[in-house]
Amino acid sequence: MPIDTFRGILVPALTPFKPNLSPDIDAFTKHCHWLLDKGADGLAVFGTTSEANSLGLEERMNLLDHLIESGISPNVLMPGTGTTALTDTVKLTAHAVDRGCSGVLMLPPFYYKAVSDEGLFASFSEVIQRVGNLDLRIYLYHIPPVSQVSISLKLIARLLKSYDKTVVGIKDSSGNWTNTLSMLKEFPSLATFCGSETFLLDTLKNGGAGSITATANVNIENIRKVFEHWRDNSAEQLQKKINNVRKEFENYPAVPALKAIISKHREQPSWKTVRPPLEQLSAEDSEQLSSMLKKLDFEL
Amino acid sequence: MPIDTFRGILVPALTPFKPNLSPDIDAFTKHCHWLLDKGADGLAVFGTTSEANSLGLEERMNLLDHLIESGISPNVLMPGTGTTALTDTVKLTAHAVDRGCSGVLMLPPFYYKAVSDEGLFASFSEVIQRVGNLDLRIYLYHIPPVSQVSISLKLIARLLKSYDKTVVGIKDSSGNWTNTLSMLKEFPSLATFCGSETFLLDTLKNGGAGSITATANVNIENIRKVFEHWRDNSAEQLQKKINNVRKEFENYPAVPALKAIISKHREQPSWKTVRPPLEQLSAEDSEQLSSMLKKLDFEL
Repeated sequence: MPIDTFRGILVPALTPFKPNLSPDIDAFTKHCHWLLDKGADGLAVFGTTSEANSLGLEERMNLLDHLIESGISPNVLMPGTGTTALTDTVKLTAHAVDRGCSGVLMLPPFYYKAVSDEGLFASFSEVIQRVGNLDLRIYLYHIPPVSQVSISLKLIARLLKSYDKTVVGIKDSSGNWTNTLSMLKEFPSLATFCGSETFLLDTLKNGGAGSITATANVNIENIRKVFEHWRDNSAEQLQKKINNVRKEFENYPAVPALKAIISKHREQPSWKTVRPPLEQLSAEDSEQLSSMLKKLDFEL
Repeated sequence: MPIDTFRGILVPALTPFKPNLSPDIDAFTKHCHWLLDKGADGLAVFGTTSEANSLGLEERMNLLDHLIESGISPNVLMPGTGTTALTDTVKLTAHAVDRGCSGVLMLPPFYYKAVSDEGLFASFSEVIQRVGNLDLRIYLYHIPPVSQVSISLKLIARLLKSYDKTVVGIKDSSGNWTNTLSMLKEFPSLATFCGSETFLLDTLKNGGAGSITATANVNIENIRKVFEHWRDNSAEQLQKKINNVRKEFENYPAVPALKAIISKHREQPSWKTVRPPLEQLSAEDSEQLSSMLKKLDFEL
C-alpha cells in the first residue's frame, strides 16, 4: 500500500444543524476538532452519516472551507464528493483537491439503477479526466443498501488497471463481510476500509487499512484501540466492547440516534436536529438508547 | 380540477449532448420547439428521460433560461427540480418559478431509503416554505423503480391537506395501474398523469389529466390522438397503436433507445450520445429496434 493513503479510523463526521435547518458551522467545526483530539486518523466529512446528500453544493464547499480555515489540516480530510451529476461531482472533487484534501470518498452516480459497469467506469473516468489533477486520490464508496448502485469487483479491477495512481482505496459499507474479504484478497494494493467497526479486527487481520464508521462520531477512542492493538492479546476483547456499543445503535436509525446521544451528553438540544427526509429520534427512544449505553459503561 | 393545471400530453424532453458530453443547447432548443409544433401540451424538461440527474445545477438552470429565451413560453414548462438536497431543490424550484414556469415536477429527496412519510412531508413542506412564492405549482413525481423512495397515498393526502393550492398534480411512474387508479379515485382534485402512455385511455376515462411519457419524444402526434379522441369509437384502436410502439421501445433501455432512433431519423450521430452512467445503444440494437418500428409503420 502506498504510504500516502489513509490508514486507521476515519470519522464520517455528523453535520449539526441550527433549528432553522441551516448547517451550524461552529458546532460542526468544534465536533471535527474534538474528533481529531480524541485520536481520529481522519475525517470523512460529507458521507452518508453527515447527511451530505441533503446538503447543497454551496453548503458542502462552504463547510469544507470553514473547516480548513479553522486550522484542520486538509491532510486529514477525505470529503465525500460523489453526486448523481457528472458536473456537480467534478465541481466538488476539484474544490476538495484544490483545497489540498488528501483524498475524496466518491459515491457512484446513484440516480439511475441497473446501470452497467461500463457506464460506471465511464463516469469515474470522466470525473478523473475533467478534474485533471495528479493530486487527486479517490476512495470508492460502496454502499448498496443506500445508493442502490454497486461498485463491483470487476469495476474496481477495471479502474485500477487504468487509474491505479488515482483510485487508491475503498469504503465497503455493503455490510457483507464476504464482499469485504474479496476486496482485501483481490486488491491488496487498495486501502480497504470496512464501513462498520464490527468488521475492524477481521479487516486489519486481512491487510485492510481500517474503518470509516458512523459510530466513530461517539466512540472513536475505543474503536481506535482496536486499530492500535489488533496484534495484541487484548484485541478480541476490545473488538467485543465496540461491537456491543454498535449493536445498541443499530436498533435505531443511525444519524438521528448519534445526534440524540451527542445532544444529550453535551446538553445541546439543537444537536438533535436532522434535515428532512430524516427524522429526529423521539425522546423515548433517546432515553432508551441512553440507558442501554449506560449499562455498557459507555461514555462520550 | 383547477383550470390552471396542466392537461394532455407532456414530454419529458431528452437532453442532447455534444460528443464532449456538454449539453447541446441548440439541439435541445430545436427538439423542444419541434415537440411543441407537433402538438405537445407541455414540456416536462429535466425528468428521468432528460438525464436531468446527470446534469449539474448550473447546467439545468442554464438550459431552462435558453429555452425561454428561444421563445418557448414558460406557461408550457414543467421542469424537474427535485434533488437529494433541500437547498438545491429550493434553488432549482425558485429559479423555475421566478422564470414563470407553470409548474415543477418534484422528486422526493431520494438518497436516504426507508424514510417515513413524516420525513418526506417535512421535506416538501420545507421546500414550499423556503421558495415562499404563491405562484409555485408542484406536480409530485412518483417513480419508485428509479428513485426507490415512494410518494404514498397517505403522503399525498397529508400534502393536499396543508398545501392544496400548491400541490396540484402527480406523475405516477410506478408502472402499477392499481396505484394510479387509487390516486385518481382518492384525489379527484389532483391532476394525475400516468408515466406511461400504456395507461393513457384508462387514466382519461377515470378523470386523469393525461400522460407525461418518455416515448412522447418520438411519438407525440399519435399519443396526443388518444387524448383528443378518448371519448370516440376510435380510441381503443388509437391506444393499441401507441402501445405497439411503446412495447418495442421497452425491449431496450429507454433513454439510449429514444436517442438512437432520433439520431437515425435526423441523421445526426451526436444525438446518440448519453451521459454516463448510461450507455449508448449498440448499432446492432439500434438497427433491430428501427426495423421493428418500421414494421409498425412508425415514422418520426
